[in-house]
Amino acid sequence: MSRRLGIPKGTKDLNLEAITQRNYITEIIREQFERFCFEQMETPAFENTGTLFGNYGEEGDNLIFKILNSGNYLSKVPHNVYKEKNSKVLSRYISEKALRYDLTIPLSRFICMNQHLLTFPFKRFQIQPVWRADRPQKGRFREFYQCDADVIGSTSLLQEVEFLQLYDAVFTNLSLPAQLSLNNRKILYGICETFGVEDMFKAFSVSLDKINKIGKDSVLEELKSKGISGEVCTNILEIVLFEGNNREKIDLLKTKLSSSPRGKEGISELEFIFKTVDQINLQTLDICLDISLARGLQYYTGSIFEVMAKGVEIGSIGGGGRYDNLTETFGSYGRLGGVGISFGLDRIHIVLEQLNLFPKTLLENREVLFLNLGEAENIHTLNIINRFRKNNINAFLFPEKTKMKKQLAYANRRGVRFVAIVGEEELKGNHITIKNMLTGVQTTVSEKDAKKLILNTLG
Amino acid sequence: MSRRLGIPKGTKDLNLEAITQRNYITEIIREQFERFCFEQMETPAFENTGTLFGNYGEEGDNLIFKILNSGNYLSKVPHNVYKEKNSKVLSRYISEKALRYDLTIPLSRFICMNQHLLTFPFKRFQIQPVWRADRPQKGRFREFYQCDADVIGSTSLLQEVEFLQLYDAVFTNLSLPAQLSLNNRKILYGICETFGVEDMFKAFSVSLDKINKIGKDSVLEELKSKGISGEVCTNILEIVLFEGNNREKIDLLKTKLSSSPRGKEGISELEFIFKTVDQINLQTLDICLDISLARGLQYYTGSIFEVMAKGVEIGSIGGGGRYDNLTETFGSYGRLGGVGISFGLDRIHIVLEQLNLFPKTLLENREVLFLNLGEAENIHTLNIINRFRKNNINAFLFPEKTKMKKQLAYANRRGVRFVAIVGEEELKGNHITIKNMLTGVQTTVSEKDAKKLILNTLG
Repeated sequence: MSRRLGIPKGTKDLNLEAITQRNYITEIIREQFERFCFEQMETPAFENTGTLFGNYGEEGDNLIFKILNSGNYLSKVPHNVYKEKNSKVLSRYISEKALRYDLTIPLSRFICMNQHLLTFPFKRFQIQPVWRADRPQKGRFREFYQCDADVIGSTSLLQEVEFLQLYDAVFTNLSLPAQLSLNNRKILYGICETFGVEDMFKAFSVSLDKINKIGKDSVLEELKSKGISGEVCTNILEIVLFEGNNREKIDLLKTKLSSSPRGKEGISELEFIFKTVDQINLQTLDICLDISLARGLQYYTGSIFEVMAKGVEIGSIGGGGRYDNLTETFGSYGRLGGVGISFGLDRIHIVLEQLNLFPKTLLENREVLFLNLGEAENIHTLNIINRFRKNNINAFLFPEKTKMKKQLAYANRRGVRFVAIVGEEELKGNHITIKNMLTGVQTTVSEKDAKKLILNTLG
Repeated sequence: MSRRLGIPKGTKDLNLEAITQRNYITEIIREQFERFCFEQMETPAFENTGTLFGNYGEEGDNLIFKILNSGNYLSKVPHNVYKEKNSKVLSRYISEKALRYDLTIPLSRFICMNQHLLTFPFKRFQIQPVWRADRPQKGRFREFYQCDADVIGSTSLLQEVEFLQLYDAVFTNLSLPAQLSLNNRKILYGICETFGVEDMFKAFSVSLDKINKIGKDSVLEELKSKGISGEVCTNILEIVLFEGNNREKIDLLKTKLSSSPRGKEGISELEFIFKTVDQINLQTLDICLDISLARGLQYYTGSIFEVMAKGVEIGSIGGGGRYDNLTETFGSYGRLGGVGISFGLDRIHIVLEQLNLFPKTLLENREVLFLNLGEAENIHTLNIINRFRKNNINAFLFPEKTKMKKQLAYANRRGVRFVAIVGEEELKGNHITIKNMLTGVQTTVSEKDAKKLILNTLG
């Protein structure tokens, strides 16, 4: 019987190299999350559909992977519903769970389920895969890791400052030059308010979010088609796309949004953040006010961030923002301020590869292959290997007694760093012959010296 | 809007404590996997249904979580199929993917997709969650981690020996006394052959696998109901349940199975393993021949293992075996011998907890909370915190300027190890006041001494 081979569209197997590189990044992120006193948490791969749907906009909702109920799931579908043969309607009856789409909504669900047990401000981080039924393309997969840190239960702007420090610490440790765009949803609302189109705020921010993808003209057309007058559109885009330094942009906003209370609040939040950051010496991160930054998700209420790698055109490698009402929609008691950031692991991976920023030694092989010379020698060799391993040396015995040539070919193909031989001669003299496969140098030494040699070479 | 709260049945959120304990175990396992030169690999959370179904028996297949196709998935269902309203039949049309049920089948799929690129024997390990729609009960979840190591491409019994060493190394490092039951499917086949019921081998092994759950008498009844005569059943169970030491059991098998070539092969494999293991000094693991060990999965062809923790009644904490034909069913070129083992992470977790084997310091809080005394002090404090973090100290500033009492209450509830104060006095003298929250001791020292104090205390 031969089965259908293949891997699902948009997914990939990760080999040692890919995992080692990913772990290099996640370990740096995790370490900084801990330095900043975020506690690790994990949530299940799937959530109840009621938890997930309705948070990501219609487009997002369509990308959620639904899980089919188990057993005779059709028995619960009423006859008239089934007769309709409508996929959307039927789903509600045959699917109660779905794969998580991000880490923020599961966090909100967790917070509200455990509010009475938690200590607020609650700082958590989470590094787990998420799944989206997106059209696969280069660098975009249907399964990918997210690395999130969030604080729930504080409206202090010092949290924003801390997240900027956190981004700075991580990108410093990755040696990755990065620029953070900062904006505030209150400013975007203020802009709408100023021109009397605050009821269009949601539509406006959805369109604006696409400006880097579709360009200014298309955004203009979209806004017009949504019912905003051409003149207002032009005025709005003039503000949003104003070029200048942070100071000049803030001055412009102060002038333009002077009649919008919400807009002014946004400006003063921005100013606090800039003022504070100026006094705490970030090492790697440049921070720019980008009034055109909107962020797609509708739950953001204040500061929003997006990080780009300098010198690599790949889109954002991180983002986040403040969402002060989100947990309330899940039934938390009272309003719990929330703010969080995310690292785009796959893109950071690509950037580090392009800029050649992975440490040179990361993928070095550290293994010792002992050749198989026959049953008599093997017992002796197995005991040596055992002692090697106890000295933190990665070692193994070739399982078959085949020709030396074949075993060496295996060593080469696998790329082991050392080959070790314990043959008749070595057995007599209580020696081991060690061959460094990178230099080709071969030496016959005592077991103790062999271990020393290997550990010294590996550093 | 308040949504439906709750977490899907049979799943759990993991908090810092649970993750820290799990990581303690997986890091020990991972380290030994690397010592033994297994390469880490990861596969996607879901596979094509064609890959998964048909490997786990009917019971297993029913526990696989199917993923609903995206979009208008009903449009591809033929009218006559839909009309049937049969869950099983409909699934084939509306679900192309399913969550992985174990790590062995994805490995086999991977091997066959990449056979031309791999170097055999191929040694891989994998630590990832799997999902099963099992009835949830104490210690059994619908999402849980598996830790597997496998070698593909060698039929050498030295692989079995290596896996016994690997189990020994891991349980030694966990300080967990364990006993491994060893058997061989060829012996079970040999027993059937000896009594002329080799066509019942599969049914026999399925029933035998349940002997610890349902008892000897129920197994006897089940075998009879499957059509094996009462006398044969009694004879078979007499062998299977024979009590004695390993030597006595092997002697019994040699006598009883002398007419079964397959049985004799199994015995000689066992003998090789016992003989070799006797000469290589395992530290922690006892190895017992258990003729009643069957293992549920039908793909096993030779040696089978199961590990129990000594002194804790919880079932197996590890298991595995040889499956020399499995990749062939996925279309590999030629037969690739395979053998692998798995660690039961959740049960090991429970055992370590019961036996109090987690290191005492594992869950110790290592954080420093800086109190928030107002905007003027905060800038100074933020800079100190920054330097603390660069010295590998986990530290953060309380985000709100609230009453001291409230901030200290937070420190206590969160259980931080140190509270730090940089007030007016400290600012003047360039000092920090550090309070050790475990001892209550409070000291005012220079920044340098504060860092030293904290790092020394944490050890």
